[in-house]
Amino acid sequence: MKFVENMCVFCKIAKKEIPTEFLYEDDLTVAFRDIHPIAPVHVLVIPKKHIESVANITEVDERLMGRLILTAKKIADDLKISKEGYKLLIRVGEYGGQEVPHIHLHLIGGARLSEDIKPI
Amino acid sequence: MKFVENMCVFCKIAKKEIPTEFLYEDDLTVAFRDIHPIAPVHVLVIPKKHIESVANITEVDERLMGRLILTAKKIADDLKISKEGYKLLIRVGEYGGQEVPHIHLHLIGGARLSEDIKPI
Repeated sequence: MKFVENMCVFCKIAKKEIPTEFLYEDDLTVAFRDIHPIAPVHVLVIPKKHIESVANITEVDERLMGRLILTAKKIADDLKISKEGYKLLIRVGEYGGQEVPHIHLHLIGGARLSEDIKPI
Repeated sequence: MKFVENMCVFCKIAKKEIPTEFLYEDDLTVAFRDIHPIAPVHVLVIPKKHIESVANITEVDERLMGRLILTAKKIADDLKISKEGYKLLIRVGEYGGQEVPHIHLHLIGGARLSEDIKPI
């Protein structure tokens, strides 16, 4: 195992080394609630594979990236927020506001949302 | 062709019925600049296939959803905004703020971004 994966908090969660309630798990992804939710529903979907950010993906990760979205869609259905809607967000790198260097897709919903994204 | 696709502005763009400068095109996706940019780089990546929203995807769309992300990543590389970072956003349905009923992924970057997503 590479040093980075050994130290990565999301790898530890995916490998159940940090006890976390999963909302969903399959062969490629796991999902769990964000510990600092910004909306009634705020779930993180992550790949089990360690990839630092979307800036690091290659062609071989195409299906895995699709699985992140499909997993989020399934969770939204399970949580009964699909009819009203939600946002899917991936922060990439410093300007994107990414905080943990392991790809994570935010599923944000459960309420009508305002959104103010702009240059600082 | 279904009526909805015949009327869909993003289908018309994908089929080049509305002249639009593409930043990228492949077998599954096209990308073009948002006409109301919220940041120096604001690009929309859409599937050529008409799918109303992520709430309507199924397992067969997994690779297509991955392609949206991979396409965005390639464009970010081309536009030289990958090192600093960016946000990828898909609005889904009314609460998510989706305005055009054809899936589109927003690539937003080119500057350090603030982001204020919250329940209204």
